[in-house]
Amino acid sequence: MDVDRGAPSARPRMVDVARVAGVSQKSVSNVLGGYEPVSPELRAKVERAVALLGYVPNSAARTLRTGRTGVIALAVPNLWSPYFAELASHLTDAADERGLTILIDETHGDEDREALIARRLRHHEIDGLVLSPLAMDPASIAAAARSIPMVLLGERELPASVDHVVIDNVAAAREATEHLLELGRRRIATVGAPLDDGTSTGSLRLHGYRAAMAAAGLSDEGMIVRTRHLQRQQGVEAAAQLLAAPRTPDAVFCFNDMLAIGVMHALRLRGVRVPDDVAVVGFDDVAEAAYANPTLTSVHLDRQRIARAALDILVGRLDGSRAQGAGRTVIEHRLVVRESTGGRPDGSRH
Amino acid sequence: MDVDRGAPSARPRMVDVARVAGVSQKSVSNVLGGYEPVSPELRAKVERAVALLGYVPNSAARTLRTGRTGVIALAVPNLWSPYFAELASHLTDAADERGLTILIDETHGDEDREALIARRLRHHEIDGLVLSPLAMDPASIAAAARSIPMVLLGERELPASVDHVVIDNVAAAREATEHLLELGRRRIATVGAPLDDGTSTGSLRLHGYRAAMAAAGLSDEGMIVRTRHLQRQQGVEAAAQLLAAPRTPDAVFCFNDMLAIGVMHALRLRGVRVPDDVAVVGFDDVAEAAYANPTLTSVHLDRQRIARAALDILVGRLDGSRAQGAGRTVIEHRLVVRESTGGRPDGSRH
Repeated sequence: MDVDRGAPSARPRMVDVARVAGVSQKSVSNVLGGYEPVSPELRAKVERAVALLGYVPNSAARTLRTGRTGVIALAVPNLWSPYFAELASHLTDAADERGLTILIDETHGDEDREALIARRLRHHEIDGLVLSPLAMDPASIAAAARSIPMVLLGERELPASVDHVVIDNVAAAREATEHLLELGRRRIATVGAPLDDGTSTGSLRLHGYRAAMAAAGLSDEGMIVRTRHLQRQQGVEAAAQLLAAPRTPDAVFCFNDMLAIGVMHALRLRGVRVPDDVAVVGFDDVAEAAYANPTLTSVHLDRQRIARAALDILVGRLDGSRAQGAGRTVIEHRLVVRESTGGRPDGSRH
Repeated sequence: MDVDRGAPSARPRMVDVARVAGVSQKSVSNVLGGYEPVSPELRAKVERAVALLGYVPNSAARTLRTGRTGVIALAVPNLWSPYFAELASHLTDAADERGLTILIDETHGDEDREALIARRLRHHEIDGLVLSPLAMDPASIAAAARSIPMVLLGERELPASVDHVVIDNVAAAREATEHLLELGRRRIATVGAPLDDGTSTGSLRLHGYRAAMAAAGLSDEGMIVRTRHLQRQQGVEAAAQLLAAPRTPDAVFCFNDMLAIGVMHALRLRGVRVPDDVAVVGFDDVAEAAYANPTLTSVHLDRQRIARAALDILVGRLDGSRAQGAGRTVIEHRLVVRESTGGRPDGSRH
């Protein structure tokens, strides 16, 4: 949450070079930047310190030494979404600690862009790719993964031949729905299912919701709002639709936190109380959830662990310690119960 | 706010090539990807369509033709912050329309990283740089800008020799404070001033706040909370500090929306009503502001216009139509009055 680096870096930095060389950071910068005139004495001091520390100022140096660029691309649908922005930030931190650089691409969930990035775009500039695919079909992904080391950030069903990091979406959605059932809610709606049931994240979450409802002997008729997007505004629209129906819900399970924030906003403006009249659960546990009013119960995904797992797999592929398609890494999830379902503001347990 | 592309693209896409070639997108992808066996007939069809449309599938093709990479780097302190994430997304959209690629770097507001990125890192891979500097001193920035086309995203006082896109921070902060004065508030606190008064964005905003208070004949003694960071948690801590003081505020002007969200959260948990007891104003108008409870009054910055202005300047530099250091572009701001200062939920005027 800070501008500061979250974790200490093992990689020597310019300040270390300056200290060892006994010169100012500005002098180091002048020598390494190559754009200012510097004395031979200063250059020698700095170059000795650089060699001593193994300081790597840029990717070009690495490329010359190793034939690699030291650059990993991350392709996510968008950075508007706090989920992907937080994930990108964690991946950048993890890469930084290893002296790698992350290059971020936005795909807009567009099949053309995903395919270009996965299959060819900038392959000469990158060593590997972390892809969060929304639109590409599994066969195309598998074909692309034969040309570059690739890790998929799952959340959907993905080709088994490609490494991927996932969470158990079916179980997580089922647990979220069961939490609402345990509160005594019976008219539990769900918001964010995809327009067509396929192999997407949303389909898996819908499956988990339906399994919980069926096990409780409850009908989900009229309780499923499908949305094309998963942003706050779609949550507002979904709430309006649910409140206009003959059988209004007493709880809503949303497929992400943005939808849940939108649902709570719309309920509030209509005078519907959360959680008294309608309990609300989100998914992802982005930072905003803990500061919402009421604070939002959500399925917490550990983005830092997801980012590190993806990078570990790629680095293993690059250093030869890991074969392609070694499989699926499942990151644990947990439900954080806050005010929107009757818990404490900070999500601590009673 | 959507996964969809926000604006239509003038650049031909894979789907256009497929239509003109009379083949499937998958076939186009196979031909251009170069990883699948394709028939000579198919290849000829696709290559004719590519030539006809002027379709540019990747940066390598452009580099061969123009000696340019078609890549612009954007260096921002962090993507955790919705302000920078939204800005990055707008810049990517604007670049996309011009067939350019944005490469995103996180600097963590770290002087070393800013200097490396500004002065040398990946200059062989990029045509230009959009930099939002937090820590670098003006002289270093000016020196770096002599080596690569650069636009600064201001908000601080920056070297006049380097192009920069700014908003009028002093005026914006003054207007926000005057809005609170017009509501009859007199004990107006401010949260987010930097630890040291220099040329930073925060210093400019503090100047605007103080000017408004002085003009109203009011004291700001004990009313200024300085913070090292500008995230929600610092807002929580600032509110606790203000409420513990002998003279508690009846309004708080925060230097960004994250701080304001944190302040409102802490006030709510202590039973202080917003806006009745304490009115709150933020800055940036990120998406979250319009969905907060109460919805947050904020200084709206048009990130789309900021992104487009920065890109226009860089492209002008690259195509030779614009000289370096042509100066400062000021983007307008406006105060959006919502519930946290007694306005309507959606910020519309009465």
